[in-house]
Amino acid sequence: MENVDFNPKQLIEAITKRNVPEVRKIFEDYNLIDIAEVLNTIENPADLLFIFKTVPANYTGEVFTYLDKDVQENLINILTSEQISAILDNVYTDDIVDFIEEMPSNLMMKILRSASKETRQEINHLLDYSENSAGSIMTTELIELKEEDTIKEAMDKIRKTGKEAETISYLFVIDNSRKLVGTLRLRDLIFAAENSKIGDIMETDFVNVMTTDDQEVVASIFKRYDLNAIPVTTQDGRLVGIITVDDIIDVIDEEATEDIQKMAAMQPLQEEYLKIPVFTLAKKRIVWLMVLMFSATFTGLIINRFEDVLMHLPALTIFIPMLMDTGGNSGGQTSTLVIRGLALGQITTKDYGKVLSKEMGVALIAGGSLAAFDFCWILFENAVGIIKITSSVSPYLVALLVALTLFITIFLAKSIGSTLPIIAKKIGFDPALMAGPLVTTIVDAVSLMVYFFLATQIFRLI
Amino acid sequence: MENVDFNPKQLIEAITKRNVPEVRKIFEDYNLIDIAEVLNTIENPADLLFIFKTVPANYTGEVFTYLDKDVQENLINILTSEQISAILDNVYTDDIVDFIEEMPSNLMMKILRSASKETRQEINHLLDYSENSAGSIMTTELIELKEEDTIKEAMDKIRKTGKEAETISYLFVIDNSRKLVGTLRLRDLIFAAENSKIGDIMETDFVNVMTTDDQEVVASIFKRYDLNAIPVTTQDGRLVGIITVDDIIDVIDEEATEDIQKMAAMQPLQEEYLKIPVFTLAKKRIVWLMVLMFSATFTGLIINRFEDVLMHLPALTIFIPMLMDTGGNSGGQTSTLVIRGLALGQITTKDYGKVLSKEMGVALIAGGSLAAFDFCWILFENAVGIIKITSSVSPYLVALLVALTLFITIFLAKSIGSTLPIIAKKIGFDPALMAGPLVTTIVDAVSLMVYFFLATQIFRLI
Repeated sequence: MENVDFNPKQLIEAITKRNVPEVRKIFEDYNLIDIAEVLNTIENPADLLFIFKTVPANYTGEVFTYLDKDVQENLINILTSEQISAILDNVYTDDIVDFIEEMPSNLMMKILRSASKETRQEINHLLDYSENSAGSIMTTELIELKEEDTIKEAMDKIRKTGKEAETISYLFVIDNSRKLVGTLRLRDLIFAAENSKIGDIMETDFVNVMTTDDQEVVASIFKRYDLNAIPVTTQDGRLVGIITVDDIIDVIDEEATEDIQKMAAMQPLQEEYLKIPVFTLAKKRIVWLMVLMFSATFTGLIINRFEDVLMHLPALTIFIPMLMDTGGNSGGQTSTLVIRGLALGQITTKDYGKVLSKEMGVALIAGGSLAAFDFCWILFENAVGIIKITSSVSPYLVALLVALTLFITIFLAKSIGSTLPIIAKKIGFDPALMAGPLVTTIVDAVSLMVYFFLATQIFRLI
Repeated sequence: MENVDFNPKQLIEAITKRNVPEVRKIFEDYNLIDIAEVLNTIENPADLLFIFKTVPANYTGEVFTYLDKDVQENLINILTSEQISAILDNVYTDDIVDFIEEMPSNLMMKILRSASKETRQEINHLLDYSENSAGSIMTTELIELKEEDTIKEAMDKIRKTGKEAETISYLFVIDNSRKLVGTLRLRDLIFAAENSKIGDIMETDFVNVMTTDDQEVVASIFKRYDLNAIPVTTQDGRLVGIITVDDIIDVIDEEATEDIQKMAAMQPLQEEYLKIPVFTLAKKRIVWLMVLMFSATFTGLIINRFEDVLMHLPALTIFIPMLMDTGGNSGGQTSTLVIRGLALGQITTKDYGKVLSKEMGVALIAGGSLAAFDFCWILFENAVGIIKITSSVSPYLVALLVALTLFITIFLAKSIGSTLPIIAKKIGFDPALMAGPLVTTIVDAVSLMVYFFLATQIFRLI
């Protein structure tokens, strides 16, 4: 995969032997993300201190952002103000905010004290934006041009201020009140004549987001317009930052992970699984387990209500797990597709009619096949003696009852699975929260009611 | 969100009135993705033809790639070879491959016949790579430099060949045998002195992928190294293409969607939900529903085997749905976290010990709380008459039986939920396929066995 033969042992050895030139050379030659992974395993604080004293800050700054949270905290504890300041000078503000946000407040204060006045202002500014907003993930280091700049003047500006900027591939044009009036790419400058004006070659049909927009909205705009960077403005159109596509990739993964966790009846975790303590993991799951256990009690009550039916015909109990499972799986299939479609913007609440009619078609085909198969299967099981249906009733009637219940259950499951997420979306709730388990619990109860209702009708037991 | 006031009606009107200057102006002024969305709704082929005759191909080429599949097919049907050729000249080869791959073969042949010899070779070349491989999503339009080029020579090359390239932000350096020896960014050229050599400023610690690598692997490398573009090479290191981050965003979404669908017991869909015919939707679901229905039969057999127990103490039936649901949910929570962790590379099979010990901790806390709560809840239900436990046994013993079963079930569910996905990964199967429903079905059977075993022990019924 990689063209380079990075050897972790070589780095560890150079560090423990305090081999300054060798350590510096490794930092120069190899990918800093691979190096950070090795540093995460170092336990002796003196070894870490040695690195941050030895290696120039333009390397250690970037490496610092890749370190694990606890290693970062240890380092902030042991580094001097000057060393921290050197790191901060070499890290983009949005990355500083990323690690500062999660630190205990004493370390956060140490960092803010070490930062230059300008950096400190920027950090505070970004920290003010609410979590998951465009403002909180944007960076403020960008290149601003004016309409009246010539290409040559613009290139000079870029050469002068560009080293600080996160990207120089995307450039932004503002007017005197700092309002964003146009965008262009570095490549447009390369291909333009030296004396043309920025105003002539900039694009005015750009797309932008507001600081207050949710990161999920930002991600969907990136996807819709295939963007690599997007300008962030205030409500009145003043340019304040830029979000680049690499920050969006993390957002897309996070959002998918959150939805997956919610669909599996958990409150979303804020971090990687292995980094979360057991107690927090348990807390995130108990609430939903309780709620669902409690609702399953009502399914039990339905059985309790029809105990007489089961006493007359105990064989009916055999099919309860199969009916519950198949109903839950059918409903879960539908709700999962609808929830994911809504999350990706491929389905909107206006498509409800289309979704429902599609699902009814699927229910007809899937329900029909499953019911037919199950009818034969039950008769076979009874004939060869896998199950014993009491001789007081015809096995054909029992098979008919189960097959009919299955067919109706699949219809109801697909309806509930289509409807619930779309209602949730419509009234402003999170569709993923309404997913799998809740659908399953409702379908369980419904399928048992259908089962016992049909049983009393077919066998006239009550 | 957008700074521009694009009005779909204005475009439709200009088209139906055959207002050439107005249509051209709209294509120049507004975002082509928004325009494509309007064109998708046009039903009269003559209107579409008018656009592709009127608007210059540098606009219609890009717009074409954004159109729905059926609109694209209609257009290829009605356009002349010259018009198709003009479109192809204005579209990157990877985008041509994207739409050509899904077309009926007569239309594919028409496109290939209309393409220039060079384009045709590139298309055939990309079509040869297996689906979902790096080769199939890369583009071949990139900028190649030599080590001995000066900055000035490199800039001249870029100005000359760069307009064809998908990106000029990332540049690649090859030797005489076309082996990739270094990478650099356009910004490095901007900041370098005009007479320095490319070989002096290029990075040699670059990351690359092979044409045969799976797109999921490519996506994980993009994420790991925060890349915006990655070079694609043959096994022996020759440069053949480039993948940019905007193509990877689609891959990340696709992979998450596939995993979500598999976890919900479906074969993954290849397209957006609303575009798939009912019959295909049904086909993708029936297989799993059948398998799971069939396995649930065995859960039924467990009940059948213990029918005597239920005849003696029918109240035990009431708790079956709750035990099955809670077991299924607990196992599903664990398997979902493990599967997602494996997919994102946050968990590896080596972490099995860590995962299992965490989950045992969670089982202790969650199982303990739920069992304690349920014990009290059952006694309460019985005391106020919500359920009727027969007078022949102590309600305390029944509550104890259910609570104990619940506790053991949650332990087993969490073990199965941790183990199954990791075994799948270890033996080279897809962990997502082993997820939710299969875990649920196994846990169902296990929980009932525990339930009846404990019941016979506690009440000595058999």
